[in-house]
Amino acid sequence: MNNQSINPTRLLGRLAELGAIGRDPGGRLTRLAASDTEKAGRDRFAYWIEAAGLDIAIDRIGNVFGIWNPEGVADAAPLMLGSHIDTVIDAGIYDGCYGVLAGLEVIEALKEAGFSPSRPITVAAFTNEEGVRYAPDMMGSLVYSGGLDVDAALATVGTDGTVLGDELRRIGYAGNHEPGFLRPHAYIELHIEQGPVLEREGIALGAVENLQGISWQRVTIEGDANHAGTTPISMRRDAGHAAARVITFLRDRARASNTPTVATVGCMEFQPNAINVIPSRATFTVDLRDPDETRLKDEEAALAAFLETIAKEEDVAISVERLARFEPVQFDAGIVGAIETAARARDLTCRRMTSGAGHDAQMIARIAPSAMIFVPSKDGISHNPKEFTADGDLVDGANILLDVVRKLAGEG
Amino acid sequence: MNNQSINPTRLLGRLAELGAIGRDPGGRLTRLAASDTEKAGRDRFAYWIEAAGLDIAIDRIGNVFGIWNPEGVADAAPLMLGSHIDTVIDAGIYDGCYGVLAGLEVIEALKEAGFSPSRPITVAAFTNEEGVRYAPDMMGSLVYSGGLDVDAALATVGTDGTVLGDELRRIGYAGNHEPGFLRPHAYIELHIEQGPVLEREGIALGAVENLQGISWQRVTIEGDANHAGTTPISMRRDAGHAAARVITFLRDRARASNTPTVATVGCMEFQPNAINVIPSRATFTVDLRDPDETRLKDEEAALAAFLETIAKEEDVAISVERLARFEPVQFDAGIVGAIETAARARDLTCRRMTSGAGHDAQMIARIAPSAMIFVPSKDGISHNPKEFTADGDLVDGANILLDVVRKLAGEG
Repeated sequence: MNNQSINPTRLLGRLAELGAIGRDPGGRLTRLAASDTEKAGRDRFAYWIEAAGLDIAIDRIGNVFGIWNPEGVADAAPLMLGSHIDTVIDAGIYDGCYGVLAGLEVIEALKEAGFSPSRPITVAAFTNEEGVRYAPDMMGSLVYSGGLDVDAALATVGTDGTVLGDELRRIGYAGNHEPGFLRPHAYIELHIEQGPVLEREGIALGAVENLQGISWQRVTIEGDANHAGTTPISMRRDAGHAAARVITFLRDRARASNTPTVATVGCMEFQPNAINVIPSRATFTVDLRDPDETRLKDEEAALAAFLETIAKEEDVAISVERLARFEPVQFDAGIVGAIETAARARDLTCRRMTSGAGHDAQMIARIAPSAMIFVPSKDGISHNPKEFTADGDLVDGANILLDVVRKLAGEG
Repeated sequence: MNNQSINPTRLLGRLAELGAIGRDPGGRLTRLAASDTEKAGRDRFAYWIEAAGLDIAIDRIGNVFGIWNPEGVADAAPLMLGSHIDTVIDAGIYDGCYGVLAGLEVIEALKEAGFSPSRPITVAAFTNEEGVRYAPDMMGSLVYSGGLDVDAALATVGTDGTVLGDELRRIGYAGNHEPGFLRPHAYIELHIEQGPVLEREGIALGAVENLQGISWQRVTIEGDANHAGTTPISMRRDAGHAAARVITFLRDRARASNTPTVATVGCMEFQPNAINVIPSRATFTVDLRDPDETRLKDEEAALAAFLETIAKEEDVAISVERLARFEPVQFDAGIVGAIETAARARDLTCRRMTSGAGHDAQMIARIAPSAMIFVPSKDGISHNPKEFTADGDLVDGANILLDVVRKLAGEG
């Protein structure tokens, strides 16, 4: 089977072309879910689906599917490949897009090679995986797998005050199919690692066997706006200082432990945000992740306890809103094994690993056997213009995906 | 002289009327310098100046003057009263407005009583005292006293991207007089304390003999945007965490010292400000104040040293921009004594004190003998809708201002 390969020029060319869509005048790449720039990316993907002779389908949450449905196998459950094409703010070109375009490439390569699959093969681009504009992240695949009601998801109000359902209609990607209309036989997601492990260990491929649990919370601290010059330190109810104590608490705790737990405060806002006024309100997000559910619960409890402590010590009122919560996910051992087998057959080094990031695969795992393939990320950098994976690694990953697809949708 | 008094109804009525100008639909009072809402306040003040039969004059930085220039005294240097009518965001009604309207009230009362002054008496409303929209604060009086070039000040770009000179022209308050065109014989500013001392000690009046030095800086910390789930804590260059360490450092240092030093971080911004991305940039302001110049310099040096430390420890790049710097100010002993004398004559308790806030008086003190009169602030709250001073205290303060004006502009 190793004499067949994907078309490297086509895959790498499309990756560069999609990566050029959604750049601002300063060259920053930003395709937030259901925005004008993401519409341009969706339009390009839809064009490639049709150019490949695949059927296109869009569901109510805006997930886009390219379906290869050869004669006689229509009744079999489809093998599904995919990821997402929305991005964070000032993003790199690989996160998500690589999995979508490699999925499309694998289907085209198999079609051109006259491969006759035992079931339909589908490539999916799921809506709002990043969750920057609308929470929670991985929304499209969460809805698709039945984890979130589609109407509730469509009513989500974004950080910019927009409603997701309105935006999907506006950009022309509010489809008619019910999410979940195709129940996959299996799901495979190819992705850059977004971490330093493979590069640091000099390993070509990761067979991802599980995925960290994720906890997202928004914390609001209320104090008193007061004059910066005349209010003695002892009389202050400083929401900004209380928020700073939470950030240093989370970092000190993570540094002191030897667990893989990570905690991040990514969003912060002060009110009234004036130089000479003590902040009356600080609003910030906390992102906690751990591959072990018990430890993740411990971290959430430690944060809650510390918030109670500073509420007393700083004389502030604190409220917490849960934005998202996903337990750690176990992937399908059979597919993970197939990935390792394919790597060996191509003489590529491979290791089993945990995904530190959330991915659509963790959602689809609710309804179908799923797994992921990782390729190395330079310096582990992601969600950043410096995100980079070497062409050779990208091609190797896509060929392994091809081999695993051949096995799971092989001539029956 | 104590048989004469200001008109309480007129003063309190105007304070309420001006306090109703510039409220948003939610009732929040905001009159940022040279904004549409501040124009409405300026128009109202100009109307009252003309209704009182005073001459009105506007200088190039937009300072507004109401001038009582009786026959025969035009050659004498004018006695100047005043403060400002711009506000912070979501402000109270007393800060600044009380000093301006009490100054106008004192002139009207003296005029009505047939008082014949030995020199012109002027009430001034200085531009952009709060410094929320344009830095530095106290800009109008700073320019008036020659501490800042008027053209440089007019070119100031605001937090909203506007240029002060354009905005003054737009609202019709770009005057023709050169700042400083009236060189005061003396300057007296009546103001709420904006601190807790008078109320806590049950004292009616403060004779302000000096004023804290003020240091404003903007700090920018640059790290690396990176994935919140896959980047080990040890590999992070987290600008947000570094900023939080600065806030807790300043607070811990202030709490540990027994000096009146105060430090405030009022503004904070994270970039890219996304839940699942480590902040690549944090920008925040530091407001340091101390009545002793040596101690203020020590605090600035301690902050600079700590920034160097965390730049190394957190592997981030830090840049600092000075926004404003004013040394502590000594007021005129003669005027301070006259305030104490007037208080005794009306059987009102009075204490000498330091101003913790910056005021226009500190700028005018560069060109004329100056001092301030404080009245109590409930709970020391200011720059906040809860800012409150009892009517009786407001009237007492205005009557003491009247008495001191009679003394400094007495029948020659």
